[in-house]
Amino acid sequence: MFEFQVVHREHNGHARLGRLTTPHGIIETPVFMPIGTCGAVKGLTPAQLLDVGTTILLANTYHLALRPGHQIVADLGGLHRFMAWDRPILSDSGGYQVFSLTTLTDIDDAGVTFRSHIDGQTLRLDPARAVVIQEALGADVIMAFDQCPPLPAEPPALQAAVDRTVRWAAQCKQSQTRTDQALFGIVQGGLDLDLRRRCLDALVNIDFPGYAVGGLSVGEGPEQMAAFLADFAPQMPSDRPRYLMGVGRPIDLVRAVAAGIDLFDCVLPTRNGRNAYAFTDRGFLRLRNAQYKRDDRPLEAGCDCYCCNHFSRGYLRHLFLAGEMLGPILVSLHNIAYYHRWMRRIKQAIADGTMNRLIGRARQAAAQENSNDEAPEC
Amino acid sequence: MFEFQVVHREHNGHARLGRLTTPHGIIETPVFMPIGTCGAVKGLTPAQLLDVGTTILLANTYHLALRPGHQIVADLGGLHRFMAWDRPILSDSGGYQVFSLTTLTDIDDAGVTFRSHIDGQTLRLDPARAVVIQEALGADVIMAFDQCPPLPAEPPALQAAVDRTVRWAAQCKQSQTRTDQALFGIVQGGLDLDLRRRCLDALVNIDFPGYAVGGLSVGEGPEQMAAFLADFAPQMPSDRPRYLMGVGRPIDLVRAVAAGIDLFDCVLPTRNGRNAYAFTDRGFLRLRNAQYKRDDRPLEAGCDCYCCNHFSRGYLRHLFLAGEMLGPILVSLHNIAYYHRWMRRIKQAIADGTMNRLIGRARQAAAQENSNDEAPEC
Repeated sequence: MFEFQVVHREHNGHARLGRLTTPHGIIETPVFMPIGTCGAVKGLTPAQLLDVGTTILLANTYHLALRPGHQIVADLGGLHRFMAWDRPILSDSGGYQVFSLTTLTDIDDAGVTFRSHIDGQTLRLDPARAVVIQEALGADVIMAFDQCPPLPAEPPALQAAVDRTVRWAAQCKQSQTRTDQALFGIVQGGLDLDLRRRCLDALVNIDFPGYAVGGLSVGEGPEQMAAFLADFAPQMPSDRPRYLMGVGRPIDLVRAVAAGIDLFDCVLPTRNGRNAYAFTDRGFLRLRNAQYKRDDRPLEAGCDCYCCNHFSRGYLRHLFLAGEMLGPILVSLHNIAYYHRWMRRIKQAIADGTMNRLIGRARQAAAQENSNDEAPEC
Repeated sequence: MFEFQVVHREHNGHARLGRLTTPHGIIETPVFMPIGTCGAVKGLTPAQLLDVGTTILLANTYHLALRPGHQIVADLGGLHRFMAWDRPILSDSGGYQVFSLTTLTDIDDAGVTFRSHIDGQTLRLDPARAVVIQEALGADVIMAFDQCPPLPAEPPALQAAVDRTVRWAAQCKQSQTRTDQALFGIVQGGLDLDLRRRCLDALVNIDFPGYAVGGLSVGEGPEQMAAFLADFAPQMPSDRPRYLMGVGRPIDLVRAVAAGIDLFDCVLPTRNGRNAYAFTDRGFLRLRNAQYKRDDRPLEAGCDCYCCNHFSRGYLRHLFLAGEMLGPILVSLHNIAYYHRWMRRIKQAIADGTMNRLIGRARQAAAQENSNDEAPEC
C-alpha cells in the first residue's frame, strides 16, 4: 500500500528520482505539494490543480481540526471526498501551527495547551490526539507531532525541543491504528548538525516509513539552510522519502534536491499569487506596477498554463487593481504551474546529470531578484 | 454580420425561440447573460463559464471606462481579447450606473456630470461619449445612453427622462461609426404604458436592430413588473430582439419570456453565490445554516455542474465559514449553471407548448421562497 523506490541517483549520488506509492496513487519525486490549508488550495478547484500537474496536496491538521472539526470531515467521507481530491494527500501534524499561530498557554512534556486563533478557545494538542485527528482526516501521509522552535534558539531550548519531538514521535507511532497511512517522523535540532543527527538516530530507531526535516526556514537565512542541508540530508536513510517542510523559493528547492530531499511544500506560489507576484524565470513580476498597464504579453512566454494561454499582464494588473477575485485565482494557478515546471526541470537535470548547471541558473535568478529594491512578500 | 430570426412562437404567439447572429457567434434566445462588471465574471474563468453553458456575457461600460479605461482595453486588443472571451458580449451604456452608483453633480439635456465612485473624480458622460467608449471596448451589442429614474417617480420626471432618452438614443445612433456592433435602443417610461409606448414609437422611428426595456426592477414590485411586461412587451417590434435589463429571479424570467422578452442579465446568480445562497428548484439553500454541517449531498441532485458533481453542501458551508474564495467560486458557478438550465427549460416549454405549466411551477417555488423568514440578499 505504501512503498518508496529510488529509481535514479545523480550529483554525487545525493539527488534522487523516486517513486512514492500511496493508497491514492503513485507520485514521482522530487515533488512540490501545493497547500490546501483549510481543505482548499485558495481559489483553485481540483480540476485546475490537476490541469497544472499537481499530484499531491498538503492539508493542515491544525486548521481542519479547529474548523470544521476532523469529525465532521470524517462524517463527510474523509479529506479526499471532502476536498474532491482523489489523489494523494499529506497532512501535517498541527505542531508548527500550534507554535506559530496560537497564543500558547503551556508547553509540557505531554503536549501543548493553546488558544485557538479563530475564537480564543483553550484547546489541547498532544501526540495521541494529533494521530486521532489525522486518522479521522485520512490523508495518505501523516506527520508526527513535533516541537518546532523559531531560530535562532539557545542550545538548551533546541535540546528540549528535540527530546520532546523524539518522545512525541514514539507516542505517535504507538497511537497509530490505521494501516493505510504512512506516518513520517520529523527531525528537529535547528542548525546544530550533531543535535540533528542524534534526533535522526533516535527517530530511525523508532523506524518510520519517511523522515521530514522540520524547523528550517524559521529565521535562519537561506544560505545557512542550504549549507546545513548539504551536510545533513545525505545522512538521512536513503531508502526512505525525505521531506523538507515549509520550503521554499525555486533556488531553495533545487539546492535541497541536490542534497537529497524528495518532498516539498510551501505557501509561496499561492500567497504570492494572491498578492499579485508572479514567478517567472526572469524573477518576479509585480503586477500592480504601472509598467504592465498596456502589456499584452502573458506572464511568461512559453508557459502552457491556462493563465498564460489566455490572459495578458495588462488584464491581470487590471483585475488586481479592481479587486477582482479572478486576479488571485489566475496568478496562483500560474505560480503553481511554475513550481511544477521547475520540479520537472530538476528531475530532467537529475536524469541528464546537469544539476550544477541548473543550480547556477537558479542562483543567478535569485541574485537578480535580491538586487531588486522592492522585496517580494514571502 | 448581425441578424435576428424568430424560429418558433408559442403562448398566444408572444413567447419566442430565436436566433441572434453576431460577429462572435450565434446565440439561441431566450438567453441569460452573466455579468462581467469589470471585465470578469466574479471568480470564474471563461473556461468555467463555457462549461456551464454561457453563450453571451454582459460587461459594464461605466466600470471599464473608469478602470482600466476603455483606451487601455482597446490597446490590449478590445474586450473579447482582454477577457479572453471570444463569444458574443453585450456592453451596457453606463447610464444606469451613472444614476445609481455615483454622486451626481448635474443632469442636463446634453449629458450627465458625476463623481466617480472609485476616486471621486468629476467626469462627464453623454450619448456621443457612451458610443465612443463602447466602440473602443468592442462588444457585439452596445446600448444607447439613457436616463433611468428610480420608481416610484412623478409623471413629469418620467416624461423628462423619456424625452432625454429618446434624444440621446438618436445622438447615439448618429455617433456610431463601427458597423460590426448592433446598437440597441432603450425604452424608459416607468409603469406608464402610454408613456412607454410613446418612447417606443419614437425609438422605432429612429430604427434600432434591437430594443431594451430599461427602468424596471428599480423599486416597483415583481407583480407590477410582470403585469406591465405582459401588456408592453408584445407591442415591441416582433422582428427585433427584446432585452429586459437587470432582471431577475427565475419566476421573473419565465413570465417575461411569456410576454415576449428574449435577453436577460442579472447579478443575482453571482452576487447570491458569493453570499452563500444557492439556487435550487426547491428554493434557496442558505449555506451558512448549521443544518448543512454534515450534509453530504450536492447543492441540487441531478445538477450536472462541476460544483454539484464534486462537492457536498457540508464542504461548501465549511468554505464559507472559513472565508475560502473557493466557496463563492463554486456556488456562483452552480447558480449560473442553474440559470442556464432554467432558460433551457423555458425554451423546451416554448417548444412543447407548456409555458403555463412552467410558470405555475415557478410561481409555487417563489411563493415557498417568500414564505421563508430569512430573505435572500437580492
